[in-house]
Amino acid sequence: MTIDQIDTPAVVIDLDVVEHNIQTYQAYCDEHDLALRPHIKTHKLPSLAKAQMETGAVGITCQKIGEAEVMAAAGLDNILVTYNILGAAKLARLRKLHDEIKLSVTVDNGTVVEGLSGAFADAEKPLAVLIECDTGAGRCGVQTPEAAVELAQQIGQSMGLRFAGLMTYPATGGTADVQTFMTAAKAQLAEAGYACGTISSGGSPDCWQAHLAPIVDEYRVGTYIYNDRSLLLRGVCGLADCALHVLATVVSVPTPDRAIIDAGSKILTTDLFGLEGHGLVVDHPDVVIAAVSEEHGHLDCSRSSGSFSVGDRIRIVPNHACVVSNMVDQVHLMQGDAVVAVQDVAARGKIN
Amino acid sequence: MTIDQIDTPAVVIDLDVVEHNIQTYQAYCDEHDLALRPHIKTHKLPSLAKAQMETGAVGITCQKIGEAEVMAAAGLDNILVTYNILGAAKLARLRKLHDEIKLSVTVDNGTVVEGLSGAFADAEKPLAVLIECDTGAGRCGVQTPEAAVELAQQIGQSMGLRFAGLMTYPATGGTADVQTFMTAAKAQLAEAGYACGTISSGGSPDCWQAHLAPIVDEYRVGTYIYNDRSLLLRGVCGLADCALHVLATVVSVPTPDRAIIDAGSKILTTDLFGLEGHGLVVDHPDVVIAAVSEEHGHLDCSRSSGSFSVGDRIRIVPNHACVVSNMVDQVHLMQGDAVVAVQDVAARGKIN
Repeated sequence: MTIDQIDTPAVVIDLDVVEHNIQTYQAYCDEHDLALRPHIKTHKLPSLAKAQMETGAVGITCQKIGEAEVMAAAGLDNILVTYNILGAAKLARLRKLHDEIKLSVTVDNGTVVEGLSGAFADAEKPLAVLIECDTGAGRCGVQTPEAAVELAQQIGQSMGLRFAGLMTYPATGGTADVQTFMTAAKAQLAEAGYACGTISSGGSPDCWQAHLAPIVDEYRVGTYIYNDRSLLLRGVCGLADCALHVLATVVSVPTPDRAIIDAGSKILTTDLFGLEGHGLVVDHPDVVIAAVSEEHGHLDCSRSSGSFSVGDRIRIVPNHACVVSNMVDQVHLMQGDAVVAVQDVAARGKIN
Repeated sequence: MTIDQIDTPAVVIDLDVVEHNIQTYQAYCDEHDLALRPHIKTHKLPSLAKAQMETGAVGITCQKIGEAEVMAAAGLDNILVTYNILGAAKLARLRKLHDEIKLSVTVDNGTVVEGLSGAFADAEKPLAVLIECDTGAGRCGVQTPEAAVELAQQIGQSMGLRFAGLMTYPATGGTADVQTFMTAAKAQLAEAGYACGTISSGGSPDCWQAHLAPIVDEYRVGTYIYNDRSLLLRGVCGLADCALHVLATVVSVPTPDRAIIDAGSKILTTDLFGLEGHGLVVDHPDVVIAAVSEEHGHLDCSRSSGSFSVGDRIRIVPNHACVVSNMVDQVHLMQGDAVVAVQDVAARGKIN
């Protein structure tokens, strides 16, 4: 099957670009003595997680136990779950995973530590627990190095748990803040008698500045494998580095200025990231995807010299690749214009 | 199982509210001699489509052939696909459906008519084709009554097709424009010798004004079955009419003003509809869901007198119910606090 025969809308992944992206960023990490732990949320495919491991990654990152279960079942055996795990159902699943693979998790509060300790108190090997630190992103994480020390002490005193280091998901542009926070936290932890096994940072927007926070020894990055319009417009990648495209067909041209495509929010999502438009129309960069409803995308062609006809097919670089992977049951893996495989997005929709 | 035992995040559906919503709007349609053809995109569940039919709906509406296939397999046998269907793969599936159930479709251009005629020329019974009219929403649809007449003539001359009426998805607040456009189109079609079998309008925001366009004899509405925050804030429904809630757990309280829940864009989506915040926190209406990333929702508690602790569970009325149904593989059907069934969202993710 070739690209022209794929029924639209569809997600197509260029495997050559994927390979290039995996190798290029692995080489960067190798050069800077950074352990690379890719976040699988972008692709949700065991096959690509394995490719990342084979190229030199030390393990993978998941946010959901359901994602980790899919990856573990496929043979991935070193997984960091960067999420506060709460509740009996999830703790039982986490414990089962821990008995099967090399697992680590993050926490940012004592309630979560208590729950973990209850579930792991009788584990043969302790669960590795990293402390999430808020270095400026304002999402999860302890707010101060002092709070990190306090939580490390609680972990240290908890049966079944082992303090394994610090983790942060930094603000965009926050590399220097990571260095400052982690340096202070590492020093205070050392004073309290705790060694930081790992200091893990991450994030795609600043992934090429990771070495500017040299205290970090592990980097988690997801989007780099596909890239997307958000990273493209921020200058993090080039158009040729965008591996994931949404294939769409023009289904209506009601007016000369407006064309309607069969890709709406059910495949592109409504993630804007502050950008104008819902994606980049490859070969027609002056066309704006001005709006999306669930099954329709509106192309504003008023600034474009060209025009569309019903039946025309276009490729779109979406604003945010990760969320697009989550919208579809299958993706088409391509080599040039040839479909190499149609693969189930095995870790899609794992909300628990 | 009771609501407290459901692992979060999760989608819960109150069946009593669903039944009330189905009956109330069916009664409105009955009172105004409107045929009701619910759009299944909101629930994507055969069981609820059947409930709508049993209460008096004349058929259902789908936008995707994949949705129609799921519904037909479950026994729904009168389906309008409100979409321009293009391409050999989709036309073959449409033809197969047509041989099994009472099917109708919409078109807004000659290219789609040509494709349909090619696929249905040898059908035993002709395919019923409605013409989509743009009465102001600016999405798909012919732009003038004259263009509708021209397209009806093409349909009339096409083997295997039968002109069956007019359809529109109006702009919010556009009921009067529907009446104006459809009146002119019906008259011009009559002059050209074409009777409008059905004049179908739709849309939830103005569903209680449907009778103010009396030329319309069929109404398509989806969201009314669940309702959502968008309709609530527009005054279309009350809080007690909102049948779909997202159940979430507070996983982190990094600062007094900020709590983080385990419901992010992977369940709430990023649909804003121009509203502030990503949903209504039931029982805490002064808390703003200020931001979502894929697995995290940020509660801004700065305007709230109460506070959250890690482990607290909340209910959220999402901005847009339809897109939430599409994010999850399963929903919990509830009667009060009891889980009656955990049902697969059978028509979820049908992008083709």
